[in-house]
Amino acid sequence: MSPQDLSAYVSKKRSYLCVGLDTDIRKIPTHLLNSPEPVFEFNRQIVEATSPYAVAYKLNIAFYEAMGTKGWTSLAKTLEIIPKEMLVIADAKRADIGNTSKLYARTFFETFDFDAITVAPYMGEDSVTPFLSFKDKWVFLLALTSNPGALDFQYHQDGGELLYQRVIRVSQSWKPQFLANLGYVLGATRGEQLADVRKQVPNAWLLVPGVGAQGGDLHKVCKIGATPQGGLLINSSRSIIYASQDTDFAAQAGKVAKQFQTEMASYF
Amino acid sequence: MSPQDLSAYVSKKRSYLCVGLDTDIRKIPTHLLNSPEPVFEFNRQIVEATSPYAVAYKLNIAFYEAMGTKGWTSLAKTLEIIPKEMLVIADAKRADIGNTSKLYARTFFETFDFDAITVAPYMGEDSVTPFLSFKDKWVFLLALTSNPGALDFQYHQDGGELLYQRVIRVSQSWKPQFLANLGYVLGATRGEQLADVRKQVPNAWLLVPGVGAQGGDLHKVCKIGATPQGGLLINSSRSIIYASQDTDFAAQAGKVAKQFQTEMASYF
Repeated sequence: MSPQDLSAYVSKKRSYLCVGLDTDIRKIPTHLLNSPEPVFEFNRQIVEATSPYAVAYKLNIAFYEAMGTKGWTSLAKTLEIIPKEMLVIADAKRADIGNTSKLYARTFFETFDFDAITVAPYMGEDSVTPFLSFKDKWVFLLALTSNPGALDFQYHQDGGELLYQRVIRVSQSWKPQFLANLGYVLGATRGEQLADVRKQVPNAWLLVPGVGAQGGDLHKVCKIGATPQGGLLINSSRSIIYASQDTDFAAQAGKVAKQFQTEMASYF
Repeated sequence: MSPQDLSAYVSKKRSYLCVGLDTDIRKIPTHLLNSPEPVFEFNRQIVEATSPYAVAYKLNIAFYEAMGTKGWTSLAKTLEIIPKEMLVIADAKRADIGNTSKLYARTFFETFDFDAITVAPYMGEDSVTPFLSFKDKWVFLLALTSNPGALDFQYHQDGGELLYQRVIRVSQSWKPQFLANLGYVLGATRGEQLADVRKQVPNAWLLVPGVGAQGGDLHKVCKIGATPQGGLLINSSRSIIYASQDTDFAAQAGKVAKQFQTEMASYF
């Protein structure tokens, strides 16, 4: 998907909402366990209920990989039923030496046709750029994550520059043709840093997890993070997909997604 | 596997050799492509030929994941035929927020029964420790990697401490019961840093990739890196498994593995 198409879609739907399909078979409503493919069936109903309000879906690969072959099948089937206009993100946090990253890129961009992938920056340029060599495919590079462990290394400071700032600066110096499709993961729980990051990369797309169950502030994120082109994808997983544990789970998920979108629309 | 068992095995075989089964279906001898499971068949013959000289096998997950369901099947079958005394490492470079890392840990330690996994440190403590909560399972945390991109972030310096040194220091402050099974990835191409790392963690096991095709110096690594308990696993992938492209590939792989082990034995 091109940045122009994503901008237009965000603007048309007045939404930054990315729904996280972190589907854990131990957490889905029990009545679904009788279906032949419970995880796919759950995802199908969630996507149907939430897609009017969303612009993106993010699938955390850990949840599918943990189920073995069945998980990969549910993943593939889920990708088929997500509307084509959506940006679909593999939350895989992969990265390896160049040749190996290329293989991961093929898996997620060719075998599975994701639009985007999250990538861990620790191993540097040659571990990230293979993902950016695919036309109209996106990388969201981990910058400042929403978990407590983010404090351990991401604030390591060199001459006044924090590690996550360096990740952004250095990655912005890679081949210019890569930049349009290079975004950053910035946890919503790091509200204070969002304004600085926005100054550092006025146009880059930010994937912001941690709104909802993790406590991030939607108002603040929209106000500080949005750009004229959109510039934001705000992910919520648990607070949407597990809004109800009952047979009405999809309707309730749709309701929460609509609440998010309604509030987002008011900031456009 | 317990650290005592690994020490005893290394000492008995007078070997630090870890063979990297980074098996790329496009690079294996063409005569194997007629077999029903070419990747497994290749691995089977490589393991048979190299296991007299090795103490560990490392499977880079990217190569198997890229093949879809068939890849996961070849992976599972390969694990079955590796002798039980070997330390078997999933080179997966995973890490995510706590709950999600736990899922990855289950995949590699329960579904697949690997002994160890490589983990990326960027997201900090709660992304790593779920892997260490499994009894007798190991983590090799990325410290200083062998690829060119290692220079981008791993040398970020805060008050004289480089990022990879901080990764080691901070991770050594986690729960004491985790430390026996916490090792570090340190590229053989970073020979100058090996001595410092050995001073910082005199007893930790180091997984050293990059000897062979990537140009690391075996003599230096053994001399500086070994400890009375062993303390070293030296990985070689391409220079062993692709030693020949012909029907004699396994015999040639065995020959190269034997050369490595013979040299290693001389440093015991």
